Amino acid sequence: MAYRIAVLPGDGIGTEVVPQAIRVLDKIAEKYGHQFEYKQGLIGGAAIDATGHPLPEETLGLCYNSDAVLLGAIGGPKWDNLPTHLRPEVGALLPLRKELGLYANIRPCRMYSALADASTLKKEVLEGTDMVVIRELTGGMYFGPKGRETVDGVERAWDTMLYSTPEIERIVRLAFEAARKRTRKEVCSVDKANVLEASRLWRETAIRVAADYPDVTLTHMYVDNAAMQLVRNPRQFDVVVTENTFGDILTDQASMLSASLGMLPSASIGGNVALYEPAHGSAPDIAGQKKANPLATILSAAMMLEYSFNLVTEARAIEDAVEKVLSKGFRTGDIMEAGKILVNTEEMTDRVLEELA
Amino acid sequence: MAYRIAVLPGDGIGTEVVPQAIRVLDKIAEKYGHQFEYKQGLIGGAAIDATGHPLPEETLGLCYNSDAVLLGAIGGPKWDNLPTHLRPEVGALLPLRKELGLYANIRPCRMYSALADASTLKKEVLEGTDMVVIRELTGGMYFGPKGRETVDGVERAWDTMLYSTPEIERIVRLAFEAARKRTRKEVCSVDKANVLEASRLWRETAIRVAADYPDVTLTHMYVDNAAMQLVRNPRQFDVVVTENTFGDILTDQASMLSASLGMLPSASIGGNVALYEPAHGSAPDIAGQKKANPLATILSAAMMLEYSFNLVTEARAIEDAVEKVLSKGFRTGDIMEAGKILVNTEEMTDRVLEELA
Ligand SMILES: [Mg+2]
Ligand SMILES: [Mg+2]
Repeated sequence: MAYRIAVLPGDGIGTEVVPQAIRVLDKIAEKYGHQFEYKQGLIGGAAIDATGHPLPEETLGLCYNSDAVLLGAIGGPKWDNLPTHLRPEVGALLPLRKELGLYANIRPCRMYSALADASTLKKEVLEGTDMVVIRELTGGMYFGPKGRETVDGVERAWDTMLYSTPEIERIVRLAFEAARKRTRKEVCSVDKANVLEASRLWRETAIRVAADYPDVTLTHMYVDNAAMQLVRNPRQFDVVVTENTFGDILTDQASMLSASLGMLPSASIGGNVALYEPAHGSAPDIAGQKKANPLATILSAAMMLEYSFNLVTEARAIEDAVEKVLSKGFRTGDIMEAGKILVNTEEMTDRVLEELA
Repeated sequence: MAYRIAVLPGDGIGTEVVPQAIRVLDKIAEKYGHQFEYKQGLIGGAAIDATGHPLPEETLGLCYNSDAVLLGAIGGPKWDNLPTHLRPEVGALLPLRKELGLYANIRPCRMYSALADASTLKKEVLEGTDMVVIRELTGGMYFGPKGRETVDGVERAWDTMLYSTPEIERIVRLAFEAARKRTRKEVCSVDKANVLEASRLWRETAIRVAADYPDVTLTHMYVDNAAMQLVRNPRQFDVVVTENTFGDILTDQASMLSASLGMLPSASIGGNVALYEPAHGSAPDIAGQKKANPLATILSAAMMLEYSFNLVTEARAIEDAVEKVLSKGFRTGDIMEAGKILVNTEEMTDRVLEELA
């Protein structure tokens, strides 16, 4: 079967790591007899430079007409001072997710035992951590009404955290479905229901939805406590579900459990065409130096095989290859430790390809 | 000189730890020849049970007519299902801060070397951490316009993150003043200026204020990255300043650097009468069992001596006593480790009093 993949490298290290994931997909195609058709599109700063807009119509059309989208990373200091609607994150990533109806971001956070020493947390605290954070992506403060005005000579600015019951229900339901497939079957819903009205609606909705999933345990946690518990005892979490801004903060924090953002894949789902991208950004500070860790993008491609194409064996083969490469001691700079072998972006991929051979 | 202290034990372990701080203050009074006059007031659930309101007028009057306020903790499951305006946090703590004009929360986060092993972070990551987080307290989403409505049969709820330039300027200025008194003289302003309008006004204002402090270095960090950096490399921070919700999350997260919330004092300042309280909550799960760590409240009393009464020698004496007690191996349950001596709430205070003798 042929799968059409929209490939959007974007900016900075995005242009370095995406080709590495394609090398891995090509190896999978060869080994398992699949056909992947890649069509490349412009997004972010690269698209601004070429077309004047961070998310050109052509790119959006390409995504709609694909079976899945593989994205690198977008943005960089060059485009930081453009008007808001043209900036890469606001002008491309947020509308892309919205246009594709991708209301859920899924970030697995599993501890690789070979990397346990590379984290700033103690090994015994991390050991056994295997959680998934599900973040609402298209609602909340990033999309709610916002503005700036001068009243009686005083300037003020605001953003609105706005959620409707259906928006909350679909993401909470997705979390329950995910939990049902896991061993522990636990959902921890994170909110700030003691002070926020939107959080109270969130919590009420979660409690109502829970009635449909008697096999899953629902707990609630305030977001400030969750930020604390992620450092104190990450093992306590199975599936975490939360709104957009809180999820933005908690997923980045949780990423530190895995030693580096360079290790973390993500999937954004909800519509017909899902989006797969590494959790890291465009990292302008190391761009063009072959230092980027390609594993997050390679593991994102594995998530694509599993979630969008249902190629579970192939996905596991990639994940196992990554685990073996790490066990053999190969490390990019972001996860380097004494006694390990430092490799660059391409060399890391070479090692993964060897394991897949 | 006589100092009038409003004492508000509140709920749960608040009623256990506040008397311990008073024992320490009494010892200081005796040793250094001061006079502390305590007047007790009701707040939180205890006030609801007695008067029907979590912040009675009488308590507010007591605070206005004092030189400083020492608060324990408020809230508990018993009062969780009351209407919003009567709940302890929304009905008492938030309005108390607002009424007293306490727009800044100050949380020092210093690593006690005796406790370095008790943290979930590696000792070498924590070593040398000495930061202060300054959180805006009276603006943002917790106080902005909020509500719930049904539009075309769909229920929705919202909260507004609203900031005016003067609100931002005074807290940022306070951060620069604090940084100026420190060795590194660095302010890291945390926002989400890539997507939030309120954050953009925050950042512009910080940059403008910075011009008045050429001796202080200003940097900016997105809140999701800050949550990550606090785990990755906490030593990088000197003074952190941020808005209310982000500060709520980051201060609780930062508290984990110090092994336990039970160690962390806080001060809320800005008006004529400042408020001192431990960073921890009412901890209903351990209330009434003499397990609570009194050190956060004792250290809050030390902050009161320093900030409100300018009794710096006395404040240092308390801090030194706490450090010695920890070095000698005494621990409450929250910071207990193998090989240390477990003590209860009163016994921990006894050890502090011995050091002050
Ligand atoms: Mg983020
Ligand atoms: Mg908090």
